Amino acid sequence: MASTSSLTLSQALLSREISRHGSNSSSDRVPLSIPTFSGLKATKPPRLSGSSHRPRTTHYRRQIVRAAVAETLGTTAENALVEKSINTIRFLAIDAVEKANSGHPGLPMGCAPMGHILYDEAMKYNPKNPYWFNRDRFVLSAGHGCMLQYALLHLAGYDSVREEDLKSFRQWGSRTPGHPENFETPGVEVTTGPLGQGIANAVGLALAEKHLAARFNKPDSEIVDHYTYVILGDGCQMEGIANEACSLAGHWGLGKLIAFYDDNHISIDGDTEIAFTESVDTRFEGLGWHVIWVKNGNTGYDEIRAAIQEAKAVKDKPTMIKVTTTIGFGSPNKANSYSVHGSALGAKEVEATRSNLGWPYDPFHVPEDVQKHWSHHIPQGADFEAEWNAKFAEYEKKYAEEAAELKSIITGELPAGWEDALPKYTPESPGDATRNLSQQCLNALAKVLPGFLGGSADLASSNMTLLKMYGDFQKNTPEERNVRFGVREHGMGAICNGIALHSPGFIPYCATFFVFTDYMRAAMRISALSEAGVIYVMTHDSIGLGEDGPTHQPIEHLASFRAMPNILMFRPADGNETAGAYKVAVVNRKRPSIMALSRQKLPQLPGTSIEGVEKGGYIISDNSSGNKPDVILIGTGSELEIAAQAGDELRKEGKAVRVVSFVSWELFDEQSDAYKESVLPEAVSARVSIEAGSTFGWGKIVGSKGKAIGIDRFGASAPAGKIYKEFGITVEAVVAAARELS
Amino acid sequence: MASTSSLTLSQALLSREISRHGSNSSSDRVPLSIPTFSGLKATKPPRLSGSSHRPRTTHYRRQIVRAAVAETLGTTAENALVEKSINTIRFLAIDAVEKANSGHPGLPMGCAPMGHILYDEAMKYNPKNPYWFNRDRFVLSAGHGCMLQYALLHLAGYDSVREEDLKSFRQWGSRTPGHPENFETPGVEVTTGPLGQGIANAVGLALAEKHLAARFNKPDSEIVDHYTYVILGDGCQMEGIANEACSLAGHWGLGKLIAFYDDNHISIDGDTEIAFTESVDTRFEGLGWHVIWVKNGNTGYDEIRAAIQEAKAVKDKPTMIKVTTTIGFGSPNKANSYSVHGSALGAKEVEATRSNLGWPYDPFHVPEDVQKHWSHHIPQGADFEAEWNAKFAEYEKKYAEEAAELKSIITGELPAGWEDALPKYTPESPGDATRNLSQQCLNALAKVLPGFLGGSADLASSNMTLLKMYGDFQKNTPEERNVRFGVREHGMGAICNGIALHSPGFIPYCATFFVFTDYMRAAMRISALSEAGVIYVMTHDSIGLGEDGPTHQPIEHLASFRAMPNILMFRPADGNETAGAYKVAVVNRKRPSIMALSRQKLPQLPGTSIEGVEKGGYIISDNSSGNKPDVILIGTGSELEIAAQAGDELRKEGKAVRVVSFVSWELFDEQSDAYKESVLPEAVSARVSIEAGSTFGWGKIVGSKGKAIGIDRFGASAPAGKIYKEFGITVEAVVAAARELS
Repeated sequence: MASTSSLTLSQALLSREISRHGSNSSSDRVPLSIPTFSGLKATKPPRLSGSSHRPRTTHYRRQIVRAAVAETLGTTAENALVEKSINTIRFLAIDAVEKANSGHPGLPMGCAPMGHILYDEAMKYNPKNPYWFNRDRFVLSAGHGCMLQYALLHLAGYDSVREEDLKSFRQWGSRTPGHPENFETPGVEVTTGPLGQGIANAVGLALAEKHLAARFNKPDSEIVDHYTYVILGDGCQMEGIANEACSLAGHWGLGKLIAFYDDNHISIDGDTEIAFTESVDTRFEGLGWHVIWVKNGNTGYDEIRAAIQEAKAVKDKPTMIKVTTTIGFGSPNKANSYSVHGSALGAKEVEATRSNLGWPYDPFHVPEDVQKHWSHHIPQGADFEAEWNAKFAEYEKKYAEEAAELKSIITGELPAGWEDALPKYTPESPGDATRNLSQQCLNALAKVLPGFLGGSADLASSNMTLLKMYGDFQKNTPEERNVRFGVREHGMGAICNGIALHSPGFIPYCATFFVFTDYMRAAMRISALSEAGVIYVMTHDSIGLGEDGPTHQPIEHLASFRAMPNILMFRPADGNETAGAYKVAVVNRKRPSIMALSRQKLPQLPGTSIEGVEKGGYIISDNSSGNKPDVILIGTGSELEIAAQAGDELRKEGKAVRVVSFVSWELFDEQSDAYKESVLPEAVSARVSIEAGSTFGWGKIVGSKGKAIGIDRFGASAPAGKIYKEFGITVEAVVAAARELS
Repeated sequence: MASTSSLTLSQALLSREISRHGSNSSSDRVPLSIPTFSGLKATKPPRLSGSSHRPRTTHYRRQIVRAAVAETLGTTAENALVEKSINTIRFLAIDAVEKANSGHPGLPMGCAPMGHILYDEAMKYNPKNPYWFNRDRFVLSAGHGCMLQYALLHLAGYDSVREEDLKSFRQWGSRTPGHPENFETPGVEVTTGPLGQGIANAVGLALAEKHLAARFNKPDSEIVDHYTYVILGDGCQMEGIANEACSLAGHWGLGKLIAFYDDNHISIDGDTEIAFTESVDTRFEGLGWHVIWVKNGNTGYDEIRAAIQEAKAVKDKPTMIKVTTTIGFGSPNKANSYSVHGSALGAKEVEATRSNLGWPYDPFHVPEDVQKHWSHHIPQGADFEAEWNAKFAEYEKKYAEEAAELKSIITGELPAGWEDALPKYTPESPGDATRNLSQQCLNALAKVLPGFLGGSADLASSNMTLLKMYGDFQKNTPEERNVRFGVREHGMGAICNGIALHSPGFIPYCATFFVFTDYMRAAMRISALSEAGVIYVMTHDSIGLGEDGPTHQPIEHLASFRAMPNILMFRPADGNETAGAYKVAVVNRKRPSIMALSRQKLPQLPGTSIEGVEKGGYIISDNSSGNKPDVILIGTGSELEIAAQAGDELRKEGKAVRVVSFVSWELFDEQSDAYKESVLPEAVSARVSIEAGSTFGWGKIVGSKGKAIGIDRFGASAPAGKIYKEFGITVEAVVAAARELS
């Protein structure tokens, strides 16, 4: 049956993910019955709040918290339950932070109303399959407020956040770490905490949806159709990355991206007045967003609902809903102050807040009526998924080819034999810059991998990243695969994280000059941490770029990434090594890869191979026997040629020389001791390395008796050959060092 | 004579800087005669162009270059000379790029008019003393267009850019590198090229001026009074750092900051339409700037002049003058296209451009009338400086104390005995987190160093960076020294670079969590490259921060900065080491310093010292003799305590143990071989290091037989003690490793 096949698709995904995370029991999974939908809706018709251009003033936030709470009394029974649910969220956050004696209660207390409305009313998801493909995505960009999301996941019935998880908030081995981590907590889409990353991830998620919808939706089947919601705070708004990503979101017209800006006027150092007085509304209008202001985010539930409706109605622009809230809402003595931002309230204030909000329950208690109400999300979610599965089954029948492609993106299963597409080279193949060889790989891979897409930060023609068979991903051509990021490296990286984490089969790549990884390092680190297999195409990887000079010449960058956990740093030397690096990168879907690529032309070297790259370090030539060379020369990238030439020179002098390519330190490190010994025998201390970058870290490879040739100063502006010579990155230097050592 | 003393001040500065750069001859210096001012002004009264809110359209840029050129014919003789001067600038750029066959002619050709008006009409400077204190500052944020600035410096009479320098553009050893570098070319204020940095530097320069003016100006003497001008392009505008810095500039009301936005609609990948369609005007209005649009930046000289006048009249806001230009103006076949952005025009197109603009001269030729006209800047500049010197002499008479303080900021001479202010500790002093000990140092230094100021990116109360005796630097209190950067790490770093490079006596510090150096790394690298002695106060320096988890826990960061040239990476262990790190940091005015500081409390250790820190690595305890310990234990920061405790354990077992603090690898590396041998004798291979961070790089220190204990994975969210234990960063682990090795 077709529907079985579709169910298998999402079930397979679920079990894949669950097995990874280990501790969920699939026996808890609710069967896919189709219960009656019992959403809780406001009885009053929503009031359109409209967009406001009024500059921020400080008056409206001097509201008295008690009064605001009282205001909502006397509403309908349903609204009373909403209120109770919202307070449940608040107290779960308060109690968890209190128990941990660590965390951020202020945001969850202030954002509980929008959180409730999102998870209880607006969003489509299936709590028992957090990886259901067509779910709405939610990103808490203000990740420190993670107890908001944990409380919501708990109420919604996600297995990842049970009561015991709330009670072990921020403890060793818990699924409720101090900031949201997708790799720890199913239901969390991306890893946030470093400010501004989440909103940029959300732009990536929304891009992914828009792209897939354009590629796969049919007039009779909207098989891809979800929203991306974000909550971001003042901190995110101040970060440059947020402006970069939001400028692109406006440019691309990501109409299904809806961001809630928690406008609470408090940051860690106090009132935002001390550092943040710009008009965010005006800025976002400039960025091409639709802007709505919800003036009463604390109790104006209908205002929030109306804003979401309005946002959904605006289809050609992303929407920012500025929601003015009170941080720590409900705390009589700490609300609206920075003291509630990042510390437990303390027993006394917790009591005062319980009393203030009329909350008689024990810590971590979810009142029965609230629990009963939220329980509908489990069957409802199953229903959403079942409906979608049925829809997909129909789709599959009519559009078999598209369905197979989409399925590959959804599951992350690579098409059989994809790696055959990678170009192959011989020493006779024409020499070329590895950036050009990289473009051959990118274009080869885009032909066989349905989820392969990406672009450059305004350097496509230098990074050589254009996919020749595709057009540009733009507002009106979102089915295309060349993404134009503009000069926005940091936003680019974080957007790619969002794309990668949207669906396992997405393989986003992005590009700039290697030195400008400095602009995007925070996003790259989150790729590594959050297991987003982004491919970073980083060209102009050394002084070899020449005249642009030291501002553009990476020196310490290779070392800086070799030190970063869970990332693969490649520096291929020629065509085979470039292809090998891409092969490993594509396979490693939970580990990002960085390609350091040359601007300058390099020869195709004898001895290089894809298989060699897979081992990280390997012998490309050797005239020694018995694993006892007189000297081992080690090079990477553009300097492997120098090592090889030096090897030839030394062999002419009768030396037994081994030349080793050290294209990826991480991969070499993962090899067996026996393999490592076969490449770098302990007994051979005469080792010379050469790399046009910092020697930092090479000490371990060449040993205390070896010599690392490199560059431990900034570069210079001159033709590349001149700089190489002046800096001593030469065959002569390697030969001289080898002679001295052997 | 008082005026002699003042002259000495600037002359001293000049010779200081010149001696550093080596090749300027002070004999060329024009005597301080006071020539008649012969500025070239427009005869027509300037027309106010007004601020325009009209959204960008694509129509107006389809202008025909020839027509635009023709339009200016028939103007007055003076305007003809202006035109000729502007074309001189264009052709100097064209010719230099052509000769180098490398570089960016497009921007200089498009921005020559604003460049001419700035350097010939608007700016105050002294070509023969590029370091004259009260000069207007100019920053070419779009640094790739550096030939614009080199041409202007050449015309203005700076010794740093003579004809032979233009002819060696982008060549080895030249003073005209591929991007503007303050450390190579006197007259260049900051180092730009990486986009967005320059505008943020300019915010720092303008902050510095506003601060000094507020502190030192008197009703009868405006001793500090200059503008900061910037040219930035589309690329800079897209970068998040620019938005961060400009948001602060608006917040601070930096009325003397005037930015020219070269709105040429072309970036490397083509028309900005493909990635940059936001309304920059609207965004800047949101940021609190005054916005002016000069619609004809190619030939509308009066419009540009009027815009500058208008900008100067707006005193409470920075001004952005959007100047719509044609990139590569004058090139008949390449203007208004990306092909003119970053490559030489080619001989044929150079000829076509010569013909199009009516330029009969040889390459690098400055027509005599143009040369004659510009020659007035040398006497005029001398005049400016002489006037100011006289003013300062008066000021000094009346306000001796303030004058001494200002002089210290101008010259960078530290007050005698300043280091006595640093706090001292004994093992009996109470233990404390190094972030708190750092605050004691900051407050002590601020009392004795007139140019010491700084702040945090919204973490002042966590980074412990508040100067208790000062208030906040704000729009209306710019004389204060606590700078509130908001959550804008990248902008913060670049702003501090601007402050540091404003005057040698400024010692700016800035702060965030150590992990968030990832957000500001590009600015930190430019500190290092451009010799800006910024102090980076980076707290929460390891898993020791605990519950916030892996997004907030630095791992690879120490290694990543140890690999960076010209930067000092400190990880002090206690009070004495923190004070020592600050002592070295203050002395190193041409090398930035990073302090990695603990969140958690640490004991004051016996054996630590300021003198030890000055050597980078030193022995804190030792029971061996003859420089032959059984084992050497090496620690940094919070793990030095662990090493010390392990040493005590091992000594109980009868071992001869040396414990070494390795607080700054760079400083240790600079010591004599004899000193190094006295700390880490080659013969002792039993070495154990411990540091709560990546072991990357430690291989060289501990050697192939030693053991590096560290963390080569991401962190975890849990109480700090628990993570230390689970990760094996313990006394037991050190003891076990030492036993195994010795």
